[in-house]
Amino acid sequence: MNTNKVNENQSIFALGEKFNNKNFSGDVWLKMLVDRDNDFNCPIGNVTFTPSCRNSWHKHFGGQILLVTSGEGYYQEEGKEIRLLKTGDVVLIEPNVKHWHGATPNSCFSHLSIETNVEKGGVVWLEPVSDSDYNSYKAK
Amino acid sequence: MNTNKVNENQSIFALGEKFNNKNFSGDVWLKMLVDRDNDFNCPIGNVTFTPSCRNSWHKHFGGQILLVTSGEGYYQEEGKEIRLLKTGDVVLIEPNVKHWHGATPNSCFSHLSIETNVEKGGVVWLEPVSDSDYNSYKAK
Repeated sequence: MNTNKVNENQSIFALGEKFNNKNFSGDVWLKMLVDRDNDFNCPIGNVTFTPSCRNSWHKHFGGQILLVTSGEGYYQEEGKEIRLLKTGDVVLIEPNVKHWHGATPNSCFSHLSIETNVEKGGVVWLEPVSDSDYNSYKAK
Repeated sequence: MNTNKVNENQSIFALGEKFNNKNFSGDVWLKMLVDRDNDFNCPIGNVTFTPSCRNSWHKHFGGQILLVTSGEGYYQEEGKEIRLLKTGDVVLIEPNVKHWHGATPNSCFSHLSIETNVEKGGVVWLEPVSDSDYNSYKAK
């Protein structure tokens, strides 16, 4: 896991395609496991971050659930300390809570992202996470 | 995986508690990762079956998504052949489709179960899966 290389073994679910997006600070792979446009109203993506990569601050009108499938990552809500995430962890992100998530400096990181209450709307992207915020994790 | 023993290493998510239930043919472990009673409207359980254990035929008014996290299992919809499931597979079960799922004869099997469109109602349990049906899998 302490590598910049990402391969199909990184995640138990399909890795998908690499994409570059202004809302992510580095390389990310995305595979939609359940599409947006169907009867389930439950979009599910498998997201894999390379070390140090994180997304920008954002919020979801309907909330989001993260299920960590491999590696180590960070999760932070505005005004709170960074939470360290490991395989098997579950993160419940309430609607409209400003937050970010991504890999730790030395690990790739994969999580399932489940968007909830999709009838309330999608995601609102905000400013990037500063290096100061990203480096503020305090081990306990 | 070819063992009757189930331990915490069986699944990347918490194994939870063993339970015996008339709707399952053998031992099953269940850990609710996301509860029913919260703002997310997205109950998620981690379900682990011992070899040969399967649930009864059933259907969901709002549909269900299975995400396979370890082992090998079976999934069957009424009138169709059994589908073999492996780690990383995704099963989309449309609302009101009669089906069952469980472990193969020689493998433990863990999947995440996500209930969708919960406002439409829950699960309806039906008759047990016959040995004849369970043993009808044809390898391809």
